[in-house]
Amino acid sequence: MQDDDNSFFRQLFLRPISTYFYAMLKQITSPHNKEIKWLLQLQEKSRNRRKEEAFIVEGQREISIAIKGKYSPLHLYFVPGLIDFQEVLEIARSNAQQPASITEISQEVYDKIAYRGSTEGLVTVFRSKEHKLQDLKFSNSNPLILVAEAPEKPGNIGAILRTADAAAVDAVIIANPKTDLYNPNIIRSSVGCIFTNKIATGKTSEIIAFLKQENISIYSAALQAAKPYHEIDYKEASAIVVGTEATGLSEEWLKNSTQNIVIPMHGEIDSMNVSVAAGILIFEAKRQRITHPE
Amino acid sequence: MQDDDNSFFRQLFLRPISTYFYAMLKQITSPHNKEIKWLLQLQEKSRNRRKEEAFIVEGQREISIAIKGKYSPLHLYFVPGLIDFQEVLEIARSNAQQPASITEISQEVYDKIAYRGSTEGLVTVFRSKEHKLQDLKFSNSNPLILVAEAPEKPGNIGAILRTADAAAVDAVIIANPKTDLYNPNIIRSSVGCIFTNKIATGKTSEIIAFLKQENISIYSAALQAAKPYHEIDYKEASAIVVGTEATGLSEEWLKNSTQNIVIPMHGEIDSMNVSVAAGILIFEAKRQRITHPE
Repeated sequence: MQDDDNSFFRQLFLRPISTYFYAMLKQITSPHNKEIKWLLQLQEKSRNRRKEEAFIVEGQREISIAIKGKYSPLHLYFVPGLIDFQEVLEIARSNAQQPASITEISQEVYDKIAYRGSTEGLVTVFRSKEHKLQDLKFSNSNPLILVAEAPEKPGNIGAILRTADAAAVDAVIIANPKTDLYNPNIIRSSVGCIFTNKIATGKTSEIIAFLKQENISIYSAALQAAKPYHEIDYKEASAIVVGTEATGLSEEWLKNSTQNIVIPMHGEIDSMNVSVAAGILIFEAKRQRITHPE
Repeated sequence: MQDDDNSFFRQLFLRPISTYFYAMLKQITSPHNKEIKWLLQLQEKSRNRRKEEAFIVEGQREISIAIKGKYSPLHLYFVPGLIDFQEVLEIARSNAQQPASITEISQEVYDKIAYRGSTEGLVTVFRSKEHKLQDLKFSNSNPLILVAEAPEKPGNIGAILRTADAAAVDAVIIANPKTDLYNPNIIRSSVGCIFTNKIATGKTSEIIAFLKQENISIYSAALQAAKPYHEIDYKEASAIVVGTEATGLSEEWLKNSTQNIVIPMHGEIDSMNVSVAAGILIFEAKRQRITHPE
């Protein structure tokens, strides 16, 4: 990664806000700069995000939520005309682990890396989290968990994470993930809920073993031969499990359920968006817990 | 609209399945044909769909659902290699009102007009319905109605229509629509539920007047100063009303409600996809109606 040629001179004339930040500040004005190419790869390729253990967030609000969610910012890129430098510094200092670099970029560079075409003038590279099943800790004895097996569409994953945040579930677990969590479309459609939820990923078999070990009942959403979802008592420790719209849940889930459940349908097509189904099930559990507390 | 030059000769050699279809059958092989341009405009422009009172459906399954939903096919376009002519005829004959034309098109033409890039080889122009509020008839004394005010994203509208079909609500009403219902993205994301639901559109003021006149209680989803949604009895005639994610419902709805309702949220972001919120509310009403029938 290299600075543009003029960044040294520019730094000489910058007001030294702190020695620390002074030393880090550099400038990139060319969209062909190597670091910008690295950023674009990070944005576009799941493989690169995995290899680098890093991902990109844009937008001041999402960046603040990520920092609040204890994500560590590695590199900040800002456009002087679009965001005040003082605000950039505040964001940089708001995490215990301060970023390794802050870079001033031109509008042209920003237009190239800003995925949403927003005009907020700030893009940040964060360190990925690991999302290990074993790291899930529950603060209560009857956690409510939402499990989604192999969800495909980023929009659906985002909607599920929003529902999980609104319901304040104790964890979201993605079984056999089809994509990495830090896909820009997932980040965008989750409106920041990717950072507020406790999320773990793992293989279906591992997750089933984990839930059984933790004495958490498994309620798998099936399409047939199952009990209407509203006849179940979800007040004890419960995991609600949903599959894909195309194929539903794998046999492994259906065989290992405490009880398979179904949303009774009475229409002509009887197809439901997976994030809507998850919302109906999770909020039925919430309703029971609110109206009949333990 | 003109046939290609060779269609007359081709027709001479076609096996005359019936005099009726024989006379109608024509062929288009050029993507620059005027009729194909007309089709593309119909697909791309809401204004053209409104002016022509017609819209396009592709895919054998969706076309069958539309015909079952009493939509009249006006023009059929098929690719001989991709769909059997006998199947095309069956679809054409399945509606009391037979199509005005059946056209054989080349793969090249099909690739141009097939919006989804599916390989099913059939595209149909249907006559639009009017969706007048006054045409809504209810077969029971306690209808359950879902109202969405000014929904914007076709994906959300599609998901709402799927939920409405699954719940077999008595009507879906779109208040102050931002787009025409026959947007190809709405048709696609509704997986055919655009054709199975009773749908009306109108201005918010007209709809409020209609609901009051029909003695249907209005439960408007608000963001604050409202009763938790699960404390309401939805077994009588009820309309559940949702607004947009960005701005919620208009004051007009909130002021004219029987009761404003809220989905209690306990997260950090507290934002929910509108189709998920609609699903939670509608299925709570269904749950009550199933577990405590009148």
